[in-house]
Amino acid sequence: MDRLYKKIELVGISSKSFEDAVSSAIEKASKTLHGLAWFEVVEQHGRIVDNKITEFQAVIRVAFKLD
Amino acid sequence: MDRLYKKIELVGISSKSFEDAVSSAIEKASKTLHGLAWFEVVEQHGRIVDNKITEFQAVIRVAFKLD
Amino acid sequence: MDRLYKKIELVGISSKSFEDAVSSAIEKASKTLHGLAWFEVVEQHGRIVDNKITEFQAVIRVAFKLD
Amino acid sequence: MDRLYKKIELVGISSKSFEDAVSSAIEKASKTLHGLAWFEVVEQHGRIVDNKITEFQAVIRVAFKLD
Amino acid sequence: MDRLYKKIELVGISSKSFEDAVSSAIEKASKTLHGLAWFEVVEQHGRIVDNKITEFQAVIRVAFKLD
Amino acid sequence: MDRLYKKIELVGISSKSFEDAVSSAIEKASKTLHGLAWFEVVEQHGRIVDNKITEFQAVIRVAFKLD
Amino acid sequence: MDRLYKKIELVGISSKSFEDAVSSAIEKASKTLHGLAWFEVVEQHGRIVDNKITEFQAVIRVAFKLD
Amino acid sequence: MDRLYKKIELVGISSKSFEDAVSSAIEKASKTLHGLAWFEVVEQHGRIVDNKITEFQAVIRVAFKLD
Amino acid sequence: MDRLYKKIELVGISSKSFEDAVSSAIEKASKTLHGLAWFEVVEQHGRIVDNKITEFQAVIRVAFKLD
Amino acid sequence: MDRLYKKIELVGISSKSFEDAVSSAIEKASKTLHGLAWFEVVEQHGRIVDNKITEFQAVIRVAFKLD
Amino acid sequence: MDRLYKKIELVGISSKSFEDAVSSAIEKASKTLHGLAWFEVVEQHGRIVDNKITEFQAVIRVAFKLD
Amino acid sequence: MDRLYKKIELVGISSKSFEDAVSSAIEKASKTLHGLAWFEVVEQHGRIVDNKITEFQAVIRVAFKLD
Repeated sequence: MDRLYKKIELVGISSKSFEDAVSSAIEKASKTLHGLAWFEVVEQHGRIVDNKITEFQAVIRVAFKLD
Repeated sequence: MDRLYKKIELVGISSKSFEDAVSSAIEKASKTLHGLAWFEVVEQHGRIVDNKITEFQAVIRVAFKLD
Repeated sequence: MDRLYKKIELVGISSKSFEDAVSSAIEKASKTLHGLAWFEVVEQHGRIVDNKITEFQAVIRVAFKLD
Repeated sequence: MDRLYKKIELVGISSKSFEDAVSSAIEKASKTLHGLAWFEVVEQHGRIVDNKITEFQAVIRVAFKLD
Repeated sequence: MDRLYKKIELVGISSKSFEDAVSSAIEKASKTLHGLAWFEVVEQHGRIVDNKITEFQAVIRVAFKLD
Repeated sequence: MDRLYKKIELVGISSKSFEDAVSSAIEKASKTLHGLAWFEVVEQHGRIVDNKITEFQAVIRVAFKLD
Repeated sequence: MDRLYKKIELVGISSKSFEDAVSSAIEKASKTLHGLAWFEVVEQHGRIVDNKITEFQAVIRVAFKLD
Repeated sequence: MDRLYKKIELVGISSKSFEDAVSSAIEKASKTLHGLAWFEVVEQHGRIVDNKITEFQAVIRVAFKLD
Repeated sequence: MDRLYKKIELVGISSKSFEDAVSSAIEKASKTLHGLAWFEVVEQHGRIVDNKITEFQAVIRVAFKLD
Repeated sequence: MDRLYKKIELVGISSKSFEDAVSSAIEKASKTLHGLAWFEVVEQHGRIVDNKITEFQAVIRVAFKLD
Repeated sequence: MDRLYKKIELVGISSKSFEDAVSSAIEKASKTLHGLAWFEVVEQHGRIVDNKITEFQAVIRVAFKLD
Repeated sequence: MDRLYKKIELVGISSKSFEDAVSSAIEKASKTLHGLAWFEVVEQHGRIVDNKITEFQAVIRVAFKLD
């Protein structure tokens, strides 16, 4: 087989935006995983406190290459 | 039972962005509903007029605490 | 935000047809809700008694404008 | 049309079990809604604190008859 | 019949954001298609190179009016 | 390979009924496409104006044979 | 246990309409099955010949009581 | 082929609990079917009368070995 | 109604391949059922023993004509 | 935007196997479409005649680059 | 980013009940994972031997905090 | 609890076939994981270069026993 990837599911939480939640999750995951190749947005939800969105929660799947 | 929440489905429409559609819907909903706790993005679509996006439409579910 | 809609889920039951179940549900809902704008058919099922369909049950979501 | 039902979505939370979350949600909902007729379990999840399940969260849809 | 629409599926790719991927896809599609009316976001994923998101990929369905 | 079909997605809109929306869409599509072979109903929704259904919207997929 | 039902999946085909496909399937099924109680519409599709719908195909699930 | 299984869909109804609805359905099915091998819970819903759950309805698929 | 079909769900298990699991299931089913007309692949999974695939399991739905 | 792809849905039919249905569909599509980039298998079904599979039908989505 | 969670998928098997399968899986997982925060029930199925349920199998997703 | 399994998601890529992609992924995974027990095919897609399929990509979930 040419290549093999593993996909893991992460939930990134940001106080700014969904895209910040996604990119921060990937940035943090890259510190312990090598060969990150792609991601998929699975769900988008968030927390509301005092009528304001205080957390943007992005559920993503991230794929990385196995050697 | 410790707590009970009700979830309602809203469609927020913004001329700016999906996140504005989401946050404006929540802000407006908070004027008549107390105890908003979380939201979930269900669908994202929009209207196109003269080849431009004129409406970002975000279907969300919003949960609030029942006393 | 330009506009905000709320969607509710109804189950209309008619002895005639699915379309009667849908249109009757909307007609009845319009007596207490203003600004009905669109509907979506979610499920279609029914009851059988003595080998005949006695109820057409249409699950619909109806959206109406919030002021 | 013979009858019309409305379905609402609730999230019941119990420290005991999923079935307690469901039945308590229905019991509490029945205090303000008349004509509850059936329910559907949509999701089952929960919270974990110190390696123990502290909340059973049951998302249900409850249908009640509109007059 | 009053009107007829056709929906096509596009995958827009942007180095900036999901919303740029969506709006650029619509802008480019509008050069060959007349009567674009609405769009729906179907999937959101992306490519990662050297631990950074280099592509935001938005799968959308775009509807346009047939004469 | 014996045969190859292409499926396209259409949204037929009728003021009369869902089945009229479906059959009119197919009739109109047949004017520019040859070899229509089957269709599938994907979604059924509609527009409401002044408490009445003014549009039945049927999303269908239509398959036709490629030579 | 109070009662037990079995659900079977049928595909009714009618040259007239989806509702005729559904009701004819149930009528025919009732000749060999006792205690039919309810049905659910699962899919709606059809065949096109010479640009006309020649078959309405309704996939339904039918439930009947087991003694 | 090593083995062949058939799956059927049952709806068990119990006044006690979902698990009683499941196990009673399997117990009753086993009286006429040999070689039951596994089951899958498909849906969980129930009936409410006078603000109390009077029926737990479990839709399950049961697989049994064909000789 | 022109015709009526029944669909049943089978799980074919083969030590060779998914397509052998499918075709063997159909061959075996044809010994007791007349008028098999089409099949649909629903799921594909399998068993692993000692790091090798020992079973290819194909869940299929098979339709046959009722007289 | 860096790139734009269009996805179309094809149904390839082969008397040999699902993979032949897929690869033949792509080979035939490539005669009129440039820049084919990837495909996705959406459904797998087939026709049965005289207790044998006579057609393997693969529904696929094929993406190609728009200039 | 405020926080990052990872979700893993487990299949707990109990001879007693689905809830025992869930809670035992979480208890066992907590021995090697720190910061378990929530779980979601994904599927419920089981094994039948001699007409009795011998295994309750609960597929769950468990989320835990990454430092 | 009798047993506990963990499921991981892999993407195997083969230049030959989907089944080679599946079996190679399992073979490679077995070098670092003990107790592989079953797998499920989740998605099947591939890459096209110069009008030919150059990669068969199989997304699978693989379950293995935790001690």
